[in-house]
Amino acid sequence: MLQKKNAVLVDGVVLNGPIMDSKAGEKFVEEACKIIMEEVIQKAEDVTEKVCEWRAPETLKMILDLEMRDTGESHQKLLQLCQDVIQYSVKTSHPRFFNQLYAGIDYYSLAARFITEALNPSVYTYEVSPVFLLVEEAVIKKMIEFIGWEEGDGIFNPGGSVSNMYAMNLARYKFCPEIKEKGLSGLPRLVLFTSEECHYSMKKAASFLGIGTENVYFIKTDERGKMIPEELEKQVQRARKEGSAPFLVCATAGTTVLGAFDPLDKIANICEKHGLWLHVDASWGGSALISKKHCKLLHGIHRADSVAWNPHKMLMAGIQCCALLVKDNSGLLKKCYSAQAAYLFQQDKFYDVNYDTGDKSIQCSRRPDAFKFWLMWKALGTTGLEERVNRALALARYLVEEIKKREGFQLLLEPEYANVCFWYIPPSLRKMEEGPEFWQKLHQL
Amino acid sequence: MLQKKNAVLVDGVVLNGPIMDSKAGEKFVEEACKIIMEEVIQKAEDVTEKVCEWRAPETLKMILDLEMRDTGESHQKLLQLCQDVIQYSVKTSHPRFFNQLYAGIDYYSLAARFITEALNPSVYTYEVSPVFLLVEEAVIKKMIEFIGWEEGDGIFNPGGSVSNMYAMNLARYKFCPEIKEKGLSGLPRLVLFTSEECHYSMKKAASFLGIGTENVYFIKTDERGKMIPEELEKQVQRARKEGSAPFLVCATAGTTVLGAFDPLDKIANICEKHGLWLHVDASWGGSALISKKHCKLLHGIHRADSVAWNPHKMLMAGIQCCALLVKDNSGLLKKCYSAQAAYLFQQDKFYDVNYDTGDKSIQCSRRPDAFKFWLMWKALGTTGLEERVNRALALARYLVEEIKKREGFQLLLEPEYANVCFWYIPPSLRKMEEGPEFWQKLHQL
Repeated sequence: MLQKKNAVLVDGVVLNGPIMDSKAGEKFVEEACKIIMEEVIQKAEDVTEKVCEWRAPETLKMILDLEMRDTGESHQKLLQLCQDVIQYSVKTSHPRFFNQLYAGIDYYSLAARFITEALNPSVYTYEVSPVFLLVEEAVIKKMIEFIGWEEGDGIFNPGGSVSNMYAMNLARYKFCPEIKEKGLSGLPRLVLFTSEECHYSMKKAASFLGIGTENVYFIKTDERGKMIPEELEKQVQRARKEGSAPFLVCATAGTTVLGAFDPLDKIANICEKHGLWLHVDASWGGSALISKKHCKLLHGIHRADSVAWNPHKMLMAGIQCCALLVKDNSGLLKKCYSAQAAYLFQQDKFYDVNYDTGDKSIQCSRRPDAFKFWLMWKALGTTGLEERVNRALALARYLVEEIKKREGFQLLLEPEYANVCFWYIPPSLRKMEEGPEFWQKLHQL
Repeated sequence: MLQKKNAVLVDGVVLNGPIMDSKAGEKFVEEACKIIMEEVIQKAEDVTEKVCEWRAPETLKMILDLEMRDTGESHQKLLQLCQDVIQYSVKTSHPRFFNQLYAGIDYYSLAARFITEALNPSVYTYEVSPVFLLVEEAVIKKMIEFIGWEEGDGIFNPGGSVSNMYAMNLARYKFCPEIKEKGLSGLPRLVLFTSEECHYSMKKAASFLGIGTENVYFIKTDERGKMIPEELEKQVQRARKEGSAPFLVCATAGTTVLGAFDPLDKIANICEKHGLWLHVDASWGGSALISKKHCKLLHGIHRADSVAWNPHKMLMAGIQCCALLVKDNSGLLKKCYSAQAAYLFQQDKFYDVNYDTGDKSIQCSRRPDAFKFWLMWKALGTTGLEERVNRALALARYLVEEIKKREGFQLLLEPEYANVCFWYIPPSLRKMEEGPEFWQKLHQL
């Protein structure tokens, strides 16, 4: 009654009335958390549960009430919806969820993600994200140590594909800074090199950046999926003869399908000789750097100019957690990406504006993805992360030995990482010769 | 003992030993949730709490124990760290947190974000994200209705800046599809037009896409910050005379500083006349479409070819929640962005592969950002979202009236949206004439 009496009415809105019932809102969040704990987190380890209650699109549309209406639904209905969403979604933390690149649950990174969702920050200047900027700086510094650089720079961003784009643009900026203002029109054809087994984001990046997919020269790989350095050398020379402008080699550390590692040291020699930027897409394989036993897979990575590394894959930091790391520490990232928006990045602040990262990014709002990795690292220690990597590779090794023992299974090649590629050959094909008919039937299967 | 006896030891790792204590992990998540409820969510509405316990970078580094070590920390220590992180972070849900573009807490979107963090999905194919792909489709369809298109397409992505890049690349692809393969080398200079008051992501996008910042022609705005259509016409003609290739106009619906809306209908006339793609950056202003009272601010938006709209701003869906919407429904988005990775996007699946969105995206892993908006919409209904918009604009109106009444405050201009720009004039300057000295002193303040 009191409120009605003193109501401030503007444009038909009572300004000093309650916006929403915050107690009811808090209760809703609590009940949703209870469902999450019971249905997702506690069942994460339960093999008797299904990975996913799979339904075809048309059926699932009928089950879920997707329509958004004029009036809102009751909390009871909404909580039921949350239950349904969980039931019909893939449980990526389930022991039987197998993805090429991630699986399982990490409790610490999950808690960290709950914190950042609740705080809902945006990471661009120190004044709005003091903790998360310092944490990002600390994590990047530590990742750089594992790469083996003495110093460097970096930025967390939404995905390995985006990291690769960042690197491609950075290499191009280093090659010819005027492109930032003038664009590519009128310039010779820029050419970059990567292996046949590289991630498809290389093509996406080349087309997005205006370089063109035809100017990605795919280098032949050996029988294990590794880039052949001699072929790279040939292609660089071919590009030069054509009058185009080679500027970048993208090596892969951990290819998507075979898990192959390109020979970085030999590739670095060629890059040095020809003055090319060396980017290593270690989105998948970078985590091996944490393991004393397996870091040799990336031998030579300290010679790279930039590295993409996704702790959300093998290290389980939660999607997305992806860093682009850069060896240059003279501000190249900022020079390349700055737009110097006066309303955000004033230079006369009362703290060192070098902490502001906004001008290193292609984004404006940016999520604090380094934080979940940091809390997990604090919780497990480097030793705990290392065990995670060693365990994944030991499991792959175990699977390989089992495949070799069992009839009807055929290993494609001895893996060097966690990717195990094999065929299942059904009884009807086991006696057949490996001719075209055999392969056609096997592919159909 | 039993486990030790049957231990499967590979490469020094006991494979069938427990990975971690899941009960302890669950307990940790529960305790972290308790801290989040008490320290973030319940204090969200408490004016007596601080927005941020601010510390200078050097001090904050000393307070937080940022170092990642070989050994992990105890749960007790980690929970204390979580407390500290919250204490020294900006509480964006605090009633006194004022940002240009967002503030406050929405309980439903928060619950939805907790669910997706726990499920940790990646959205690229129906088989790994059935629910989230259907939800995204439903949300995009609904947003398209509010824009006023009969059909369309779209994709959620990490930020308005990225949406603008998507649109710029899409317009370029439409203008000249060969650029995807051939790149920009050898082509005439591509030119795009946007207003002086546009978001700085336009420059970032132009440099990232290889177009070059000098090929962004900034169109003069009137005293309210709106693009002047006659100036646009002049600049398009100038570009044509120069022999360059105009392909795109980026209008802004809700500029960052003044909150100005470009006159879309007049701009659309010019685009039609010259065959230019019309993109509307409605990252900030798009939410007004939900309000019957205020949607006229975007009059003419149905004539746009693409629209960027961020429900994480005024609608409070949580950072990030950003859609790029496209009028074309003939698969342009897929044609422009596809890389057709064989290992992910097989065409012979047992469901309609048109549900797979991976080939519409520059990302590979992608977060289910549409889901939090969907759950919030279900909870509040369209009416509830509309009230949110009307309330924000009524509050801005109230502030304007208060500024006019008070000595020492000077309104910059009558706002049309939620941005209220004003000067505070200290007593020492109130009698001074508005000459260069006055403005210099005011700027210093």
